[in-house]
Amino acid sequence: TVNCSSCTHMRLRLPIACIALEVILIILFGVAVEYDHDVSGEAGHKTNTTHHDYENEFYYRYPSFQDVHVMIFIGFGFLMTFLQRYGFSSVGFNFLIAAFSLQLATLVQGFLHTIMTGGKIHVGVESMINADFCTGSVLISFGAVLGKTSPVQMLTMAVFEVILFSVNEFILLSLLNAKDAGGSMTIHTFGAYFGLMVTRVLYRPNLDKSNKKNSSVYHSDIFAMIGTLYLWMFWPSFNSAITLHGDIQHRTALNTYYSLAACTLSTYAFSALLNHEGKLDMVHIQNAALAGGVALGTAAEMMITPFGSMIVGFLAGAISVLGYRFITPFLESKLKIQDTCGVHNLHGMPGILGAIVGAITSLAATKEHYGNGLTAVFPKITSDFPASAQAGMQAISLVVTLGIALIGGIIVGFILKLPIYGAPSDSQCFEDGVYWEVYLPNAYCIEL
Amino acid sequence: TVNCSSCTHMRLRLPIACIALEVILIILFGVAVEYDHDVSGEAGHKTNTTHHDYENEFYYRYPSFQDVHVMIFIGFGFLMTFLQRYGFSSVGFNFLIAAFSLQLATLVQGFLHTIMTGGKIHVGVESMINADFCTGSVLISFGAVLGKTSPVQMLTMAVFEVILFSVNEFILLSLLNAKDAGGSMTIHTFGAYFGLMVTRVLYRPNLDKSNKKNSSVYHSDIFAMIGTLYLWMFWPSFNSAITLHGDIQHRTALNTYYSLAACTLSTYAFSALLNHEGKLDMVHIQNAALAGGVALGTAAEMMITPFGSMIVGFLAGAISVLGYRFITPFLESKLKIQDTCGVHNLHGMPGILGAIVGAITSLAATKEHYGNGLTAVFPKITSDFPASAQAGMQAISLVVTLGIALIGGIIVGFILKLPIYGAPSDSQCFEDGVYWEVYLPNAYCIEL
Amino acid sequence: TVNCSSCTHMRLRLPIACIALEVILIILFGVAVEYDHDVSGEAGHKTNTTHHDYENEFYYRYPSFQDVHVMIFIGFGFLMTFLQRYGFSSVGFNFLIAAFSLQLATLVQGFLHTIMTGGKIHVGVESMINADFCTGSVLISFGAVLGKTSPVQMLTMAVFEVILFSVNEFILLSLLNAKDAGGSMTIHTFGAYFGLMVTRVLYRPNLDKSNKKNSSVYHSDIFAMIGTLYLWMFWPSFNSAITLHGDIQHRTALNTYYSLAACTLSTYAFSALLNHEGKLDMVHIQNAALAGGVALGTAAEMMITPFGSMIVGFLAGAISVLGYRFITPFLESKLKIQDTCGVHNLHGMPGILGAIVGAITSLAATKEHYGNGLTAVFPKITSDFPASAQAGMQAISLVVTLGIALIGGIIVGFILKLPIYGAPSDSQCFEDGVYWEVYLPNAYCIEL
Repeated sequence: TVNCSSCTHMRLRLPIACIALEVILIILFGVAVEYDHDVSGEAGHKTNTTHHDYENEFYYRYPSFQDVHVMIFIGFGFLMTFLQRYGFSSVGFNFLIAAFSLQLATLVQGFLHTIMTGGKIHVGVESMINADFCTGSVLISFGAVLGKTSPVQMLTMAVFEVILFSVNEFILLSLLNAKDAGGSMTIHTFGAYFGLMVTRVLYRPNLDKSNKKNSSVYHSDIFAMIGTLYLWMFWPSFNSAITLHGDIQHRTALNTYYSLAACTLSTYAFSALLNHEGKLDMVHIQNAALAGGVALGTAAEMMITPFGSMIVGFLAGAISVLGYRFITPFLESKLKIQDTCGVHNLHGMPGILGAIVGAITSLAATKEHYGNGLTAVFPKITSDFPASAQAGMQAISLVVTLGIALIGGIIVGFILKLPIYGAPSDSQCFEDGVYWEVYLPNAYCIEL
Repeated sequence: TVNCSSCTHMRLRLPIACIALEVILIILFGVAVEYDHDVSGEAGHKTNTTHHDYENEFYYRYPSFQDVHVMIFIGFGFLMTFLQRYGFSSVGFNFLIAAFSLQLATLVQGFLHTIMTGGKIHVGVESMINADFCTGSVLISFGAVLGKTSPVQMLTMAVFEVILFSVNEFILLSLLNAKDAGGSMTIHTFGAYFGLMVTRVLYRPNLDKSNKKNSSVYHSDIFAMIGTLYLWMFWPSFNSAITLHGDIQHRTALNTYYSLAACTLSTYAFSALLNHEGKLDMVHIQNAALAGGVALGTAAEMMITPFGSMIVGFLAGAISVLGYRFITPFLESKLKIQDTCGVHNLHGMPGILGAIVGAITSLAATKEHYGNGLTAVFPKITSDFPASAQAGMQAISLVVTLGIALIGGIIVGFILKLPIYGAPSDSQCFEDGVYWEVYLPNAYCIEL
Repeated sequence: TVNCSSCTHMRLRLPIACIALEVILIILFGVAVEYDHDVSGEAGHKTNTTHHDYENEFYYRYPSFQDVHVMIFIGFGFLMTFLQRYGFSSVGFNFLIAAFSLQLATLVQGFLHTIMTGGKIHVGVESMINADFCTGSVLISFGAVLGKTSPVQMLTMAVFEVILFSVNEFILLSLLNAKDAGGSMTIHTFGAYFGLMVTRVLYRPNLDKSNKKNSSVYHSDIFAMIGTLYLWMFWPSFNSAITLHGDIQHRTALNTYYSLAACTLSTYAFSALLNHEGKLDMVHIQNAALAGGVALGTAAEMMITPFGSMIVGFLAGAISVLGYRFITPFLESKLKIQDTCGVHNLHGMPGILGAIVGAITSLAATKEHYGNGLTAVFPKITSDFPASAQAGMQAISLVVTLGIALIGGIIVGFILKLPIYGAPSDSQCFEDGVYWEVYLPNAYCIEL
C-alpha cells in the first residue's frame, strides 16, 4: 500500500525526496561554493588587509538578515496558522520548504551571478539575505495552495519556482538594470501570480467548503497575529536589507515604516466599512495591513518622501481589503482560482502597485532630488540614459515578471498534477491529521 | 440604526475616524516633514561629506529601534491578550492605536523640537524611536481602560494623549533639562496616571465582574507570556535606545538587564508569599517582573552600578506585586478606578520609584564618579549648576508630569464620555464579538 | 501544614529561597563587580581615549546578545510548553531559573576569570552573553527533569550547576586551550548529561504515564513551535556571539545557518521514515531540527566550509530523530532515565558529535587553509604545538566535560532528593495546578 499512487502515504515519498534533494545540494555546495572574502578573512582571498573589523559586511547586514529570517520562518509560518485544523502543516511545512529553498536559492542565484563575474559561488551575509528573499517568494505561492497539497508536492514546486524566480530576478536586476530592492516585482508579484496559476491548474471543483475547515477558530486567529505583527514590524528591515550602506538603507527603512503605518489605518477603515454590521474581519487585519510594505518594495530606497510613502501605503491597504471582499470570491467562482490565503490581495495587487509606484518615482530621479546620491541609487542613469529610460525599464520588468510567473505557474501546475506526490483528497484538505501524528482525544471533536 | 448615538455600530464611525485622521496626517507630513541629513544622504542637506557609512545613525540605533518596535506591537499587544474573550481587541486595537500614534507623535514631537531649532521636522531613526516611545505611553493608558472602550474612543484618546505627552516631554527634557532616557517619568508615570484618570471618569458602577469575562483562561495566559517575555528581554534596548553612543548606551542596557533579573526573583518571592496556598499568580509574573525596567528608566544611563540596579529592581518587583494584591482592589472599591491591566502597579508606582531613583542618583553626578564622561550624561552640570540642582530638576519634573497627567486625564476622560464613540454597554465589556467578526461555533461556549 | 516536609506548599519555601539568593547576589555584586572599560567610558578606567564610539564592544555584540537572550527566554521557555497542562510552569519556571542563573553565572564566571587577570569582576556585553550561555546549560538540564520538580528544587540545581559549568568551562577554555565558541561541549554536552544524571537519581518508578499528562495537545504543540523556530533562526547568532570580530564571527554564523538548513531536511526525512503510516511527529520537528546548531557549536568558527557544515547538520538531524525513536525508550526502560524533553537527543548526542567534529576539523588547522587568520582562530597553534595537539586537547575536553557532568549530576541529584524542596508527588507531575493559580472552569476537564 505504500506504493499506491493516489494515497497520501509519506513513509517513502517524503524521505526519498528530502534525502535526495539534500544530498544533491551538499554535493553541489562541495563543488561550487566558497566563502566570500570577508567570511574567509585572511585566508588568501582578501586583497586589502587594512580593513577594520567594523567594515565587515556582517555588521551592516546581519541584524537586517535576522529580521528577514524571522519574517520567513515566524512571519509566514504563523500567518498561515489561521486555519483551524492546519496549524502543524502551516508552520511545519513552511519550515521545511523554507529550509530547502534557501539552500537551492543560494546555488541558483550564485550560479547566475557567476555568469557575470566568473569563479565560484561566493557565500556570506548577502547571499543569505538573497536566498531568504527567494524563499519568501516560494512561501507566497505556498499560501495560494495551502491546505490542498502534500509536502512532496511543495518541495517539487519549490525546486522549479526557485529556478524561475532566480532567472526572472537575473533578467530584471542584471540585464534590464531595474531597481527592486524590496522585491515588489521579483518577490511579491512573481510569487503571487506563480502561485495563483498553480492553484488554478490544481483546481478542485468539489472542494467542500461547507465543513468550515477552510476557516479559522478563535485561538488560531491569535496565532496568526503573531505572524502578521512580525511581518509588519520587520518589513522596513526586509526592504532595506540589501540596499547600499548608509543613507540609502536608512531611507528605505524609514519610508517603509511610514507606508505600513498609513496602510494599517486604511485597512481598519475599509474592513469596518465593508461589513454590514461594521465589524472588523481578522482576515483583513492579518493580511491587508501588510500591503504597505509590499507596495513600497521597489520605491522605498528612492526619494519618495514620507508623504509619498504614506499615500502609497494608504492605497495599498484599501486595495487589499477590497480584494478580499470582492476579488477573491470572483476569482474562485469565475476563474476557478482557489486562493487559500488570499495572496492575490496581499502580494499580487500590491506588488503590481509597487512596481508602478517604482516606475513613476524613477521619473523623478534627477540631480535636483538626489544630489550626488543619484548614482548610488540609479547607477545606470546618465545623460544618455535618462530617468524616463529607467522608468521604462521598470515597466518592462513588471511585464516580464508577470509573463514568467503566469507561464511558469501553469507549467509547474501541470507538473504538480501528476498523481505521484500523495496529494490529499478533497475531504482531507485543510486537515493536519493526513500528514501529522495528531493527539487530540476530546478537544479535537469539540473545536469543530 | 447606524446613526444611533449609543449603539456600538462602527460601520461609519471607525472608517470616518481612520480616514480623516490619516488624511490630515498625510497632508501635514507633506507640508512639514523632510528627511534627516543621514537619511537623504548627498542630496544637499549634508554639510560634511567625509563621513563613513558606518557612522550613519542607522547602524547605532536601528537594532535598538526594532527591539522597541517589538515591545510596542508584540509586547504590549500580547501582554493584554490575557483576557479570555478579548484577544482580537487586545492585539488588534493595540495595533491600530500604535500605528496611528507613531505618526502623530512624529509630527507633534517634531514640531516642538523645531521651536528650538527652526526649519522643517526632520525624520530618521531617532524620530522613529521617539515616536514609538510616545506610542508606548498611549498604550499604557490603553491598558487601564482595556475592554471598556470603543476603537474610536481610543483613537480620540490617542490624539489628546500624544499632544499632552509631547508637551510634558518637551517641558522636562528641553526646558527643565531633566534626564529621562528610558521614560520613567515621561512614558510610564505619565501614561499610567493619565490612563487611571480616564478610567476614573469613565467609571462603570454596574460593571458585573461575576461573569468572569474580566479574567483569563489557560491559553490566554500563555499568549500573554509572549508579551511579557518580549518586554522583559528588550527593556535594556528600550532604556538605551536614545542615549548617547558608546559607553553610555552600553551602560544603560547593562544596568537595565540587572534590574530586571533581580526584579524577577522578587516578583516570584512576593507572589508566592501573598497567596494563602503559596501558589504563583500569573498576573504578577506577567506584569510585576517588568517593573525593574520601568524603575530604571531615568537612572539606567547613570553610574548607578549593577549593585544599585539590582536593589532598585528588587524593590520594584516587590512594590508591584503588593500593588496588585492590595492597592488595585482599594483603587477600585474606594476610588472607583477600574484599572483593567493594573497599570498602576506596573507603570505608575514603579515609574514614580524610577523618578525618585533618578533624582537621588543625580546627586552623585560628580567628576569623581563619571570622569570626563560627566558632561556627556549631564550636559548642564557645571560649577554653577551642581548635581544637587540637577536632582532638584529631576524632582520638579516628576511633579510636573503627575500634574499634567492627572489634570489632562480628567479632561480627556470627560471628552471620552460623550455618547458619540460607540462605547460598549456594561454587558458588552471584555467581549471581542462587539467589534469583531468572531467564529466560535462550539468551542466558544465551552471555554467560558 | 506549611512546615510539612513532603507537601508542595511554596508559601515560605519559594520566597525564602528567592529572597535569600537575591540578597546574596546583590551583596556579592556590590563587593566584587565593576563596569568594564567600555561601559564606564571616561570614568578613569580607559587607557586609550581615542577610540571611536563605533568601536565599542556594544555595537559588535549587542544584536547577537539579544538574539541569544530570545533563545534563552522565548526559545527554551516555549519549546517546553508542549506539555498539555504544564505551560505556566514551562515558561514561568524557565523565566525564574534563567533570571537567577544569569546573575550567579556572572559572578562565578567572572571570579574564575579574575583568577587569571586579577582585579574585580568586569561586566559588559561579553559577560552578559557568557552568563546567558551558562544559563542555557542549566535550562537544558531543566528539560530533562521538567514536570517532576519544584521551583525551589530547580533553583537549588541551578546554584550547583552554574558553579560546575563554570569550572568545566574554565578548565576547557583557559587551561586546556580548547575551542568551543558555541558550546557543543561546555553548554550542550555538559547540560544534557548533568540533567540526565539528575533525573536518573530522581527516578520515579511509579510515574503513571497512562494519564497522558506527559504528552501534548494540539495548541500546546503550536506554542512549542514558537520556541523551536526562535532557537532555529537565532542559532547562528548563538554560535557566533562570542567569537572574534570580523570574518570569524561572519563565518561562524554562516556555517551554522547551513548546518541547520540541512538538519531540517534530514529531520523531516527520518521522522516520516520511522513512522508506520509515514506521518510526521511534532516532537521530532520541534527538537531534532535544532541538532544541527548543537553539532556545530565547536567547529562553526573553523574553516569547515558550507559543504562540511551541511554534512554535519544532516547527520545531527538523523541521529537526533533516531534517538527519540529508539534511545529515549531504552534509557527509560533499561537505565531508568526519564528524560522529559529528550535532551539526550537534542543536546547530548549532537553535543558529543559537535565535540568530535571540532576535534577533527582542528586537524586541518594549517596556514594553507587559514592563511594569516590561523592565529586568530587557534592562538595556541605554533610549530611547537601543531594542529594535532589542538585536536588532542579538543578530545580531552570532551572527556573532562562528560566526567564532570556525570559525576556532578549524580551528586547534585542526591542533594535534590532531600525531602525539603516540596517536590510534587507522582500524580502531581506535569500539572500546573500544583504551583500556580489556574483558572480553568470547564475547558480544563474537556481538553484532557
